[in-house]
Amino acid sequence: MEGESKGSFDVMDQGSENKGRKLIVGTCDLVLRLLAFVMTLVAAIVIGADKQTAIVSIKLLDSMPPLDLPVTAKWHYLSAFLYFVAANAIACAYATLSLLLTIANRRKGKGMEALISVIDALMVALLFSGNGAAIAIGLLGLQGNSHVHWNKVCNVFGKFCHQATLSLFTSLLGSTAFLLLLVVPPLLRLKRAN
Amino acid sequence: MEGESKGSFDVMDQGSENKGRKLIVGTCDLVLRLLAFVMTLVAAIVIGADKQTAIVSIKLLDSMPPLDLPVTAKWHYLSAFLYFVAANAIACAYATLSLLLTIANRRKGKGMEALISVIDALMVALLFSGNGAAIAIGLLGLQGNSHVHWNKVCNVFGKFCHQATLSLFTSLLGSTAFLLLLVVPPLLRLKRAN
Repeated sequence: MEGESKGSFDVMDQGSENKGRKLIVGTCDLVLRLLAFVMTLVAAIVIGADKQTAIVSIKLLDSMPPLDLPVTAKWHYLSAFLYFVAANAIACAYATLSLLLTIANRRKGKGMEALISVIDALMVALLFSGNGAAIAIGLLGLQGNSHVHWNKVCNVFGKFCHQATLSLFTSLLGSTAFLLLLVVPPLLRLKRAN
Repeated sequence: MEGESKGSFDVMDQGSENKGRKLIVGTCDLVLRLLAFVMTLVAAIVIGADKQTAIVSIKLLDSMPPLDLPVTAKWHYLSAFLYFVAANAIACAYATLSLLLTIANRRKGKGMEALISVIDALMVALLFSGNGAAIAIGLLGLQGNSHVHWNKVCNVFGKFCHQATLSLFTSLLGSTAFLLLLVVPPLLRLKRAN
């Protein structure tokens, strides 16, 4: 009798444990998608509005003194930043769509779940490649490279570089949210296995 | 009787279908890990051996004629390439380890499978960020950027750039293999659901 009741408790425990696990996974999924949406949106807007005009001394001819001219830095002058904005915009649009599907409880079919897992993985690849490209160019703008004579530009366009850094940081947070969407389910399985 | 035998055939069909699916997933996993290992290894070696010396005309003083001096291009002069090599080396080491575990049939526990899924996802993020950084710098070397006065260098160091392109291409193949490791299982689930 004792064993029987213990057995039924075990089954109940397992059932409530499964429910609890599903609730954790569902909540994590919702929070991470919301975070991914907000962060990729902010990243795209912040760099999309990034523009600065500075007065730069330019020597047009050797025989003439340098001229002080206004020069404008815009994000779309650099192809890496174009790719970065495109990656964040695509990821933001997808985060919105998947978030709406989650809220409307339209992800019950196994096919839809599988499709979302596939696109989540593609978004991680897209966003991290965009981040890599933008950070590489951002570091070059900040430090320059004496070997190839690429001079730093952040000493002149400080505000532009600060705004780009902020955008890169928020994009990294959004990308990490997408990465966690892939990593959390196996991590929970790992915890359950131990 | 007919129904019974049909039912037992159904169970047998389902059993053999599951076995077939496991075999496909297992073979895909092995082939993709092998591809990831080979490609990341080749990418790291090809760019690690990338070096070219060219004769460049340099004007030291305005009053003097330009001097023809030997200048050497090395992959580690650019921090993006350093990160790219590190990412490929780490991914290659992990591909070797996970391949050995797969061949030795040591991945039977659910905990180990979950851990491998987590590290696969981290490798996708690492490799694609490395590719993004290296491609952004490679394109700059190839085309330059007139807005920030970063001149192209591939017109002088052609062999160096060709070797870097080959390395980038093989790394992209290796990264795609890692991405497919994440994407194939849900794709098979998607196929089964339809």
